[in-house]
Amino acid sequence: MTQVKLIGVTLSPFSRRVEWALKFKGVEYEFIEENLQNKSPLLLESNPIHKKIPVLIHNGKPICESMVILEYIDETFEGPSILPKDPYDRAIARFWAKFIDDTCIPLLGKVLFGKGEEAEKSKEEFGGLLKILDNELKDKKFFVGDNFGFADVAANFMAFWFGILEEASGVVLVTSEKFPNFCGWRDEYINRSQVKEYLPSRDVLLAHFQSRFQSPK
Amino acid sequence: MTQVKLIGVTLSPFSRRVEWALKFKGVEYEFIEENLQNKSPLLLESNPIHKKIPVLIHNGKPICESMVILEYIDETFEGPSILPKDPYDRAIARFWAKFIDDTCIPLLGKVLFGKGEEAEKSKEEFGGLLKILDNELKDKKFFVGDNFGFADVAANFMAFWFGILEEASGVVLVTSEKFPNFCGWRDEYINRSQVKEYLPSRDVLLAHFQSRFQSPK
Repeated sequence: MTQVKLIGVTLSPFSRRVEWALKFKGVEYEFIEENLQNKSPLLLESNPIHKKIPVLIHNGKPICESMVILEYIDETFEGPSILPKDPYDRAIARFWAKFIDDTCIPLLGKVLFGKGEEAEKSKEEFGGLLKILDNELKDKKFFVGDNFGFADVAANFMAFWFGILEEASGVVLVTSEKFPNFCGWRDEYINRSQVKEYLPSRDVLLAHFQSRFQSPK
Repeated sequence: MTQVKLIGVTLSPFSRRVEWALKFKGVEYEFIEENLQNKSPLLLESNPIHKKIPVLIHNGKPICESMVILEYIDETFEGPSILPKDPYDRAIARFWAKFIDDTCIPLLGKVLFGKGEEAEKSKEEFGGLLKILDNELKDKKFFVGDNFGFADVAANFMAFWFGILEEASGVVLVTSEKFPNFCGWRDEYINRSQVKEYLPSRDVLLAHFQSRFQSPK
């Protein structure tokens, strides 16, 4: 019997974070696809507070919040570390993971779905965030030196989903002229990193996002 | 020369989180009071992204974000652990810390400073969060069993600052009839926990908040 179950959604970057961490560690798991339009009793009882995916269930006990799950996986299972070893590097990795989740992703919602002046202001502000990431990624392959790790996993949305959202929405913010280091990191991530084969299908994701932007408001 | 410096603000719960962690570990540190109305060059160069306190400077290297700093302190210095030992308990502690920071504190801003209908809706929603905390704290002294730790440190705002804000603003949400377990935790925290002597002066904080609520809008 599989002791590790993951309640998730195939196309979700938050689910993928956890899947990748499990794959890095070589942990066998059962993936349970959740229907967010009609949430399952298992999800509701496993994450009664937020009712969100992903939820990891290990030996019957649920763990919620993708970044909390990542720390749990790193501490619980054998295999290569996801967080760096050095405490200062770990702090830097956690800082950037938090920056992605607390600052970048919430603002992107306003960029893509905001209206009029709010959308324009958000675009300008998001450009500032991209500049920050671009500066940070200068002369580095990944967030903490040359090793793909915790902050990169956390930033999967920025590396893959975001570019497809740009294409689907027609709101293009990233160019290699403006953000060369960010683009270099993204290119490395998608084409040469250890998760390149674990990314969802670009075509499927594009079609999924296009249908959302074309659906009646 | 002190190798550990903390840029903070005496009355800030976020600064206190870090101070308490340093005290638990017995780490000597120099506290540098920041003026948020006229930010110092040291703060701006130590936390160029967010320009916020607290910042821990250890051996000349800055670490930002109070919860990231707490993890760093726990991993770097000898002394009693702030996070529990068991990985599942650690995940639970991190989950509640995140719930406080991402869900409770942002909503409280709307409760206290929102207007009309928005404020009323926020109050009702915040009552729901208090109910969640109240359920969680049933039959427990602290967030993870009987040991004061990481999640309690993170929840210092809810334990101490929040009640004083209620008094200063006149918006009272917590009663022991409605939230007996939350009140029991808060009472234990303020009067009998290991941080009781490290809390700021209630009178000073009350006067500080009262002046904010009385100042012209």
